[in-house]
Amino acid sequence: MKATIHITLKAGVLDPQGKAIETALHRLGFAQVIQARQGKLIEIDLDESDATTARATLKDMCEQMLANTVIEDYEITLHNDK
Amino acid sequence: MKATIHITLKAGVLDPQGKAIETALHRLGFAQVIQARQGKLIEIDLDESDATTARATLKDMCEQMLANTVIEDYEITLHNDK
Repeated sequence: MKATIHITLKAGVLDPQGKAIETALHRLGFAQVIQARQGKLIEIDLDESDATTARATLKDMCEQMLANTVIEDYEITLHNDK
Repeated sequence: MKATIHITLKAGVLDPQGKAIETALHRLGFAQVIQARQGKLIEIDLDESDATTARATLKDMCEQMLANTVIEDYEITLHNDK
């Protein structure tokens, strides 16, 4: 089972990387950019065929290591290609 | 129009960050992890209501700055909440 995890900064948390992207895009002439925010994308290939178990395991991974839940949110998407 | 851009390393390109995540997850006891890869997630809020124009603009941004197309792939997703 493959999964994609989106880790994004919570609303209100300062995002200097996103701000830098925003400024650089404006400088390149993309004036229509209102806001840019940068997050992390983690793709995990899991040896687990049950979706419920896979989701619970991935949630554990996020809580224990992948995300800093004080300032970050995470979103797990499972892909049923196994 | 809001958009999400996934920037991932092309298959075959070495991913030390992903490898580190994989090793750390194994060390935490998540033995069912086969592979982990890390990419970037960029959320852009665009002052543009036409989906075709928005997608073309975002493609330009990726080609010019956001992605290094020699080693990275990008995927644009538009969210129709405007």
